[in-house]
Amino acid sequence: MGDNIYKSIELTGSSTISMEDAISQAIAKASETVHDLQWFEVTSTRGHIENGKVAHWQVSLKVGFKLA
Amino acid sequence: MGDNIYKSIELTGSSTISMEDAISQAIAKASETVHDLQWFEVTSTRGHIENGKVAHWQVSLKVGFKLA
Amino acid sequence: MGDNIYKSIELTGSSTISMEDAISQAIAKASETVHDLQWFEVTSTRGHIENGKVAHWQVSLKVGFKLA
Amino acid sequence: MGDNIYKSIELTGSSTISMEDAISQAIAKASETVHDLQWFEVTSTRGHIENGKVAHWQVSLKVGFKLA
Amino acid sequence: MGDNIYKSIELTGSSTISMEDAISQAIAKASETVHDLQWFEVTSTRGHIENGKVAHWQVSLKVGFKLA
Amino acid sequence: MGDNIYKSIELTGSSTISMEDAISQAIAKASETVHDLQWFEVTSTRGHIENGKVAHWQVSLKVGFKLA
Amino acid sequence: MGDNIYKSIELTGSSTISMEDAISQAIAKASETVHDLQWFEVTSTRGHIENGKVAHWQVSLKVGFKLA
Amino acid sequence: MGDNIYKSIELTGSSTISMEDAISQAIAKASETVHDLQWFEVTSTRGHIENGKVAHWQVSLKVGFKLA
Amino acid sequence: MGDNIYKSIELTGSSTISMEDAISQAIAKASETVHDLQWFEVTSTRGHIENGKVAHWQVSLKVGFKLA
Amino acid sequence: MGDNIYKSIELTGSSTISMEDAISQAIAKASETVHDLQWFEVTSTRGHIENGKVAHWQVSLKVGFKLA
Amino acid sequence: MGDNIYKSIELTGSSTISMEDAISQAIAKASETVHDLQWFEVTSTRGHIENGKVAHWQVSLKVGFKLA
Amino acid sequence: MGDNIYKSIELTGSSTISMEDAISQAIAKASETVHDLQWFEVTSTRGHIENGKVAHWQVSLKVGFKLA
Repeated sequence: MGDNIYKSIELTGSSTISMEDAISQAIAKASETVHDLQWFEVTSTRGHIENGKVAHWQVSLKVGFKLA
Repeated sequence: MGDNIYKSIELTGSSTISMEDAISQAIAKASETVHDLQWFEVTSTRGHIENGKVAHWQVSLKVGFKLA
Repeated sequence: MGDNIYKSIELTGSSTISMEDAISQAIAKASETVHDLQWFEVTSTRGHIENGKVAHWQVSLKVGFKLA
Repeated sequence: MGDNIYKSIELTGSSTISMEDAISQAIAKASETVHDLQWFEVTSTRGHIENGKVAHWQVSLKVGFKLA
Repeated sequence: MGDNIYKSIELTGSSTISMEDAISQAIAKASETVHDLQWFEVTSTRGHIENGKVAHWQVSLKVGFKLA
Repeated sequence: MGDNIYKSIELTGSSTISMEDAISQAIAKASETVHDLQWFEVTSTRGHIENGKVAHWQVSLKVGFKLA
Repeated sequence: MGDNIYKSIELTGSSTISMEDAISQAIAKASETVHDLQWFEVTSTRGHIENGKVAHWQVSLKVGFKLA
Repeated sequence: MGDNIYKSIELTGSSTISMEDAISQAIAKASETVHDLQWFEVTSTRGHIENGKVAHWQVSLKVGFKLA
Repeated sequence: MGDNIYKSIELTGSSTISMEDAISQAIAKASETVHDLQWFEVTSTRGHIENGKVAHWQVSLKVGFKLA
Repeated sequence: MGDNIYKSIELTGSSTISMEDAISQAIAKASETVHDLQWFEVTSTRGHIENGKVAHWQVSLKVGFKLA
Repeated sequence: MGDNIYKSIELTGSSTISMEDAISQAIAKASETVHDLQWFEVTSTRGHIENGKVAHWQVSLKVGFKLA
Repeated sequence: MGDNIYKSIELTGSSTISMEDAISQAIAKASETVHDLQWFEVTSTRGHIENGKVAHWQVSLKVGFKLA
């Protein structure tokens, strides 16, 4: 009955704008194929540098969803 | 030849009864779609509290199986 | 408005019976003075041994509640 | 004499806007009752997802203050 | 004089019944040869799965005792 | 536009020869079904022992690939 | 009955003399308001430097006490 | 030939504006003396608080570059 | 019945040749006095350098065996 | 030939005086039965508190020695 | 007197051949400018994948040397 | 303006006397070439043993300073 089971997958989002945008893009992409994503947890924050500036923010995150 | 490759996935089981039951329910659910699950490892133990009592035990675990 | 702030405290419960009971006792004790405990997370599991048997299960946990 | 003692508490802030706002809200809430908060350290960054978008940014942090 | 020295060893207990039983069996086995075991700390919780059910609970623990 | 999203999965490769071979076999197996694997990171190195010799090298790794 | 519940708080002591003194000062300060402190565990050791010398030893510790 | 060697250094950037700005400032400063910075990884996020508000965001990061 | 108890010990092997050889030598040495070693897990990989070359590979590992 | 194998054991020393003394006492005790101890590494620092003062410093350490 | 001070730096070596070669290349490169490197410790092992094969082994390590 | 950037380096100090002295010696040595060291954080505490006594205390620490 009411006991739920969740699965979590690990994604890395990338953005030229901000850490929040990198996370949001990863979640948006995953939600194209997995419905009902429910939570995320950041596991690392990295980025690429070009010419002394951050070119891409890269945030890795676990994303959880309920198994139907 | 005989060298095997395994994949592991991360699940969170939930139970009103015990930590063992939360783990068992996660494994039972996963075995509906993945055959030949072989091992698990607990990664975190949490829960929800209602009225000063544990309402749900929530155990996250990695579950491994052999790639065919 | 709808944004909530939580505080978590760290407790260690002790039980002669089981790990679940050690957790439940810690939560019951804390709920005498803090209302509306919402979640917990286990941080370590230890115990005392007497005569080759587990005399007490000691489980440390973070317990979270909403700041009013 | 001049040696100071600090205490730290653990909070989780929540925001619909950004990670920085979640942190700032947690600190603003805590400063209603604890004077002279001095530093914070982020311990985890999570969030809730609704309809493929981040609904709430949830940042846990330790916050330190001087014991009078 | 009254200062004590302890040694800790690492064991893995196994049980078909529960996590507590896996711990208790490891401690019972170790107490056959080491007297005066005093404390334990769980370091990992794993298990073997057969046919979609937990076949064995395997709990690793450090166990401490006083050097005579 | 140019912002990419990656997914990572966790595998364990096994080899009678070396740690590098265990990693290579896991990657070769995964590339049968997932195209465009791009990076890996070792998470643990273990093995089985028979008759005082390493019988199998078992290396766990995260493997990342771009979501189409 | 005889099962005890403990709470732990996190402090940072500071001393111009030694790491032991920083710990002792934190515990002395906390014992002004919390009776029956029972144990501590060091979580980090830091310090401030002035003119190439350690000006303050700063030790963070968890301190545990029994809930009445 | 084509095998590259990288060095990484650890920096802490500080900003009154945001976590991203603290990172960008650290990278901009380092690029004054080290050419061809290529990547970064956040190792901790802290800050100073004044009057119940975040006065400075302080982000520590490893920054990598190719050895010529 | 059939429930087994394992003990693990920590060793550091050393080799002028490779990481695998350092592991194999540690296991060969331990098997002179402990029968039925069953598994190992690498805990750290270090080494000594002489004249800009690796002189010794030093691998620390936990090695497990069944208690008779 | 010249390749050495080391074993490490885990001890906890206790002292009323200092952290260094707790370490030294653990090593002195172990050297009564194990010859040629070569190195140690601190794994945790704890203590007991009585009447608002540190009653015992308890330091856990790994101690390594060469297998003959 | 006689007390030595060491500095450690963090490098990432890269090789098409093996993990040992990636480490050796990083150390060889560093020894061009830093004399008397004495020890290393591996901090992570990663790699790039091309066409389902490991194209580069990338090993990060801390390398220590004595300050003159 | 007011935003500062810091760099941290990792050192290991050695002393025959105490852990505090090992830290102080490392900082004294580093301050010969780097001005304005501001803080340190201990990352590991080890030592060499000779004849059942601690011959050298070896403390590794990160030391931070402001980039001019």
